[in-house]
Amino acid sequence: MIRLFHVPLSPFCRKVRLSLGEKRLEVELVEERYWQPSREFLRRNPAGKVPVLKMNGRTLAESAAICEYIEELYPDPPLMPKTPEGRYEVRRLVAWFDDKFNAEVTSKLLHERVTKKLMGKGYPDSRLVKEGAQAIKYHLDYMGWLLDHRRWLAGDAISLADFAAAAHLSALDYISDVDWNRNANVREWYAKIKSRPAFRSILADHVPGFPPPPHYADLDF
Amino acid sequence: MIRLFHVPLSPFCRKVRLSLGEKRLEVELVEERYWQPSREFLRRNPAGKVPVLKMNGRTLAESAAICEYIEELYPDPPLMPKTPEGRYEVRRLVAWFDDKFNAEVTSKLLHERVTKKLMGKGYPDSRLVKEGAQAIKYHLDYMGWLLDHRRWLAGDAISLADFAAAAHLSALDYISDVDWNRNANVREWYAKIKSRPAFRSILADHVPGFPPPPHYADLDF
Repeated sequence: MIRLFHVPLSPFCRKVRLSLGEKRLEVELVEERYWQPSREFLRRNPAGKVPVLKMNGRTLAESAAICEYIEELYPDPPLMPKTPEGRYEVRRLVAWFDDKFNAEVTSKLLHERVTKKLMGKGYPDSRLVKEGAQAIKYHLDYMGWLLDHRRWLAGDAISLADFAAAAHLSALDYISDVDWNRNANVREWYAKIKSRPAFRSILADHVPGFPPPPHYADLDF
Repeated sequence: MIRLFHVPLSPFCRKVRLSLGEKRLEVELVEERYWQPSREFLRRNPAGKVPVLKMNGRTLAESAAICEYIEELYPDPPLMPKTPEGRYEVRRLVAWFDDKFNAEVTSKLLHERVTKKLMGKGYPDSRLVKEGAQAIKYHLDYMGWLLDHRRWLAGDAISLADFAAAAHLSALDYISDVDWNRNANVREWYAKIKSRPAFRSILADHVPGFPPPPHYADLDF
């Protein structure tokens, strides 16, 4: 039995859910309000963060390390290329989204608009929201440029890099913060990834008090 | 020819330098003031960060992806264990230091005390410095606890996890921000890692205007 402690809109949790889904591994999802951590939760992960995955009797933390571990245990279908250069590029892009995109975009939009409210920490800081809304344009352009040369973000096969990016963009799409008209490549890429079976659970997410816009779960958005 | 664009006290650059050193790969170091990026530098890395490594005709960014790439091309001596569980633990700890430790400690001490001044951004914020000085205690205790059970941080062999940790601690030691008397395990671990040939270039670093304390390069500190 695989169990994932998560919050629905966390891109880091979504990346792990997408990896598990692509490998057809069934998972029980347990919502964890990590900002009100229970003693039991802190025992599971001293870092006090989600995702935390229970699998094969182990308790695992850190989303990138978890995804590489899943990949090594269940290499089929592959989410990492065979060559060192290909794997390097996947890891570079996963870090791009989880570090840079997260700091410049996700934390400024999702955290300000949703997480702060859920945590009872008040209203969005409009300066940060404006910065995030500006920065996402540059990132969509960068993705569009990559997709000019490649079928998927890191090369010609789907990889963890696509799931890292889609995890952030889907969470932002839930709050209508992605302009899908900005770049045709990115829109086409998202339509392809959104229609994968692994994406179904993500599209079914519903956060009380924050209803998703109608296009969120629409494969023909 | 391998060339690394870096800044001397950056833990992310130091981790790459230690990896290269352990593999006995010679590298030419080029100092890059990434906060005044040249056009040429931004062409090398659109993220505008260091480290950037030029190797085998490729330009590589993102320190964790770089270290895994070096490991795959030059597996001897190994810095990653053979089992998926062992590799998971190394990656978890690398993320622990580069994300959590960096956010809670390094960014509050090193950035406030040194980088801000180099960037011409004024004086340290004493509230942040106090927070960093408090948080490092908890991290040293966590390392001490790991080393109660293991010879090195991620297991019985030296790994990228040790170099990630040593990269942060050595940069903080340069500004006398590590209390080596707090935990005997950690002190002993640092003495072991400090005496490795790969560490020599790190111990020879000298930042103008910030002379290191005498114990910094002393193997018998």
